[in-house]
Amino acid sequence: RIVPQAMAIEKEEQIAHAPDSLLRQDIDKPDSMRGQFERAIRQAQDSICAAVEDLDGGKFREDAWTRPGGGGGISRVLQGGNVWEKAGVSVSVVYGSMPAEAYRAATTKAGHGTNGQAIEGRVPFFAAGISSVMHPHNVFAPTMHFNYRYFETDEYNGIPPQWWFGGGSDITPCYVNAEDMQHFHGSYKKVCDRHDPEFHAKFKKWADDYFYIPHRGERRGLGGIFFDDLNDRDPQKLLAFATDCMGSVKESYLPIVDTRKDEPYTPEQKSWQQLRRGRYVEFNLVYDRGTTFGLKTGGRIESILMSLPRTAQWDYNQQPEPGSPEADLLDACQNPRTWTS
Amino acid sequence: RIVPQAMAIEKEEQIAHAPDSLLRQDIDKPDSMRGQFERAIRQAQDSICAAVEDLDGGKFREDAWTRPGGGGGISRVLQGGNVWEKAGVSVSVVYGSMPAEAYRAATTKAGHGTNGQAIEGRVPFFAAGISSVMHPHNVFAPTMHFNYRYFETDEYNGIPPQWWFGGGSDITPCYVNAEDMQHFHGSYKKVCDRHDPEFHAKFKKWADDYFYIPHRGERRGLGGIFFDDLNDRDPQKLLAFATDCMGSVKESYLPIVDTRKDEPYTPEQKSWQQLRRGRYVEFNLVYDRGTTFGLKTGGRIESILMSLPRTAQWDYNQQPEPGSPEADLLDACQNPRTWTS
Repeated sequence: RIVPQAMAIEKEEQIAHAPDSLLRQDIDKPDSMRGQFERAIRQAQDSICAAVEDLDGGKFREDAWTRPGGGGGISRVLQGGNVWEKAGVSVSVVYGSMPAEAYRAATTKAGHGTNGQAIEGRVPFFAAGISSVMHPHNVFAPTMHFNYRYFETDEYNGIPPQWWFGGGSDITPCYVNAEDMQHFHGSYKKVCDRHDPEFHAKFKKWADDYFYIPHRGERRGLGGIFFDDLNDRDPQKLLAFATDCMGSVKESYLPIVDTRKDEPYTPEQKSWQQLRRGRYVEFNLVYDRGTTFGLKTGGRIESILMSLPRTAQWDYNQQPEPGSPEADLLDACQNPRTWTS
Repeated sequence: RIVPQAMAIEKEEQIAHAPDSLLRQDIDKPDSMRGQFERAIRQAQDSICAAVEDLDGGKFREDAWTRPGGGGGISRVLQGGNVWEKAGVSVSVVYGSMPAEAYRAATTKAGHGTNGQAIEGRVPFFAAGISSVMHPHNVFAPTMHFNYRYFETDEYNGIPPQWWFGGGSDITPCYVNAEDMQHFHGSYKKVCDRHDPEFHAKFKKWADDYFYIPHRGERRGLGGIFFDDLNDRDPQKLLAFATDCMGSVKESYLPIVDTRKDEPYTPEQKSWQQLRRGRYVEFNLVYDRGTTFGLKTGGRIESILMSLPRTAQWDYNQQPEPGSPEADLLDACQNPRTWTS
């Protein structure tokens, strides 16, 4: 049985330069939430890429594309840099349609019932987001991932439009360094606290739950924050929160890499890093919602799989020595720790 | 939301030596199909591992385990050998239960309706199989995979017991070598022709369809044979066919590796091999039925993921030069070719 290529979204077309806006001209207004969110993610992309280039010394390569029906994306990748083996920062704006069952799940999660209306066929949606994964060379410099997205469904079969925010930032070291983890988690606690005192505890736990690899009984890394289906207050407040989260990537992550990027390591430690990257691949390909959604809705494959590490390894039945630093990392992935007071 | 570890099958227990039989003593008779099939896969494991050791010079390491409710497995892995980076040959016998919907799909495919009986809860099944993937170091020596399995469901809610055979052998080179492909596909055509003149055309196409990666629009390799839900004749005839398939692994594959194992290659060619191994990982983790079934039913993880290459690589938007040998391989993965007359 051949599974046909996902057909929900039209094939993208490479363009020479990133356009000022990926929204549909004269349809999506600049002062709409779509317009505001696009500006926020474009600005974050520029600012984060500039800071990463400063630290790495290498340059991002940019690819831009649009789709005939509207939408498109800008992917920036720094591969084989001085500090990062592969770092990607991508923004995209997608107009598509989702299966009714995905819509039912989404609207229920977003707190809106369907009031018994029949939902059949495919439901039109809009999604914009920024997504990034950065994998350094150095064994002691952690991988970081972040993703912030805004989602809307159009009015459909008498059901009013829906909207929600989602996202998060999380960190994946190969060795536990408490100081680094306190810095990273502490930065995001400050961000959360600026917007709602209940956010950090809730979103830290959500990250610990989300990045779980059931078949391993462990998380892919040491977490951070994660949230989804967020629409419980004025959208401007949630936009401000998401924007603050994106703006805090640099201060939460780059100082750690700057400190660790030249630490010496052994071939055995490099091999452990490669095995942990194998876990990263397992999580992303098997469980990550963004990845599996992208693969199934026909997103641009190279942008979706930009999150995979450049190199990964699977050794048969590799188990760290009890009491070793590797065993400590594994324990922290199995039993999430609290890094902030 | 934490997804709990799959609970369908009890946790395995490592044992010091492989037992004579993994079947349930005094319950599953040695002359039953379960008994006959177990003997066939154990014999194939012994014989193939011995031949691989002869060619490699390295030794397989064996792990055996059982489960409290019956069943178990024997995994043999040769990692970091002289010829193979990682080669695994595993047999397993599993007693478990599957969700009703999986059972409905299986019984429909196997040609037996449910006659309107309600199927709820979990349905008891038995599965035995041999599974193997061998990834050589050399860029010009292909990876081979094979898997042969026998499946039964017990009488359930008035529906009679079901049984079927499945399996296949397929090859994944990084470069097209027509002579090697003619040898491999020709060997399996001969095997098929000994049992049914219609088998080869049907099972070759099935392999081309099965090993498809929809999000890439390409297959993971250059195919072979694949079949599933096979129960259309005397089970002894299908056992003979499956046994013949297992017995032909050595002659179909090892001479190719023997010829190619010492060919010189460039770092660029090694890098291309690593990218193709990335595709192997994508297929296995996202689409392969055996892998996803194993991950969800709580099989022994290390045995299931033994199929992953030891090393793999993902470069952003890597495209082979038109007209290059790499482009030829990609074309053969996109447009399956006929290798036998």
